Amino acid sequence: MEIIKGRRAVRNFLDKEIAGKDLEVILEAGIWAPSGSNIQPWEFILVDDPVLVKKIKLVSPGLYGLPRALIVLCVNRKRCEKGGKLGENMAVMDVSMAAQNMMLMAYSLGIGSCPIVSFNKLALKQLLDIPEHVEPLLIISLGYPTEWPQPPSRRPLEEVVHVNGYGEPFKR
Amino acid sequence: MEIIKGRRAVRNFLDKEIAGKDLEVILEAGIWAPSGSNIQPWEFILVDDPVLVKKIKLVSPGLYGLPRALIVLCVNRKRCEKGGKLGENMAVMDVSMAAQNMMLMAYSLGIGSCPIVSFNKLALKQLLDIPEHVEPLLIISLGYPTEWPQPPSRRPLEEVVHVNGYGEPFKR
Repeated sequence: MEIIKGRRAVRNFLDKEIAGKDLEVILEAGIWAPSGSNIQPWEFILVDDPVLVKKIKLVSPGLYGLPRALIVLCVNRKRCEKGGKLGENMAVMDVSMAAQNMMLMAYSLGIGSCPIVSFNKLALKQLLDIPEHVEPLLIISLGYPTEWPQPPSRRPLEEVVHVNGYGEPFKR
Repeated sequence: MEIIKGRRAVRNFLDKEIAGKDLEVILEAGIWAPSGSNIQPWEFILVDDPVLVKKIKLVSPGLYGLPRALIVLCVNRKRCEKGGKLGENMAVMDVSMAAQNMMLMAYSLGIGSCPIVSFNKLALKQLLDIPEHVEPLLIISLGYPTEWPQPPSRRPLEEVVHVNGYGEPFKR
């Protein structure tokens, strides 16, 4: 719970390298996400070349600050086909859960992260030679934070949680 | 990493109650997921009434075993509107990340879980009085496992991860 509640979206990064071993552990956390029918539709592109990070930043309005690395989480459509009509939807969920594993893992290593969905998909595909059947869904930025932001406001459990029927309030 | 790698999809449950305090902690983990533009599009319906769990099981082919509780994770479409054209996609991601937080939290409490996307959405909405603008996306089953399953096979990092361009292999 400490890790889950402590993680923050970080948008200001120190100019400090992330060790290769730490990046590997973060990527490894991703592949242990749940995957519907164990399809594992994901492809992860690690970007640790600073020049490429800057190029991607230019086509990604949602990318703030200058992170030291990015992970681009993609869905491989060819793998989704096995999932039938639920395949596409499950793939988005699988990739999102993998992203959350990565961000929690990063935080537990003292590394900040931010999920980014606002980017030019076509430009990103060109920059990273991503083939037709692979779709980038989400970018995670990574770097040591200049500071850990304050927690965002959150709707309380009493508002979000319903018990045994919609509108039946949750009591602690 | 121990929690991330240890979590399993559990489909056989003991007939053992989950303490209310533990359910609260699991739900609390959900509201600390990242949320694009802090929209928090989620509504969570906790189902701990055994009769209702059985009724939901009847309309959910993806629900195995007899869990002691369910959490139905929904998107509130009215909240999504603030997100513009990316709103719907972000909402699926937010809810998926909340689900992953919940499943990791459950595991850290010794409680098994399984994400379920195969259910009759209309029947579920009727059983839980879910209004028109709220869409159930995912069910998480919860219960103490009869045993922890073996880890599923996973595509290795060398296959899943590309470095600075698609197809450029990752080396440990």
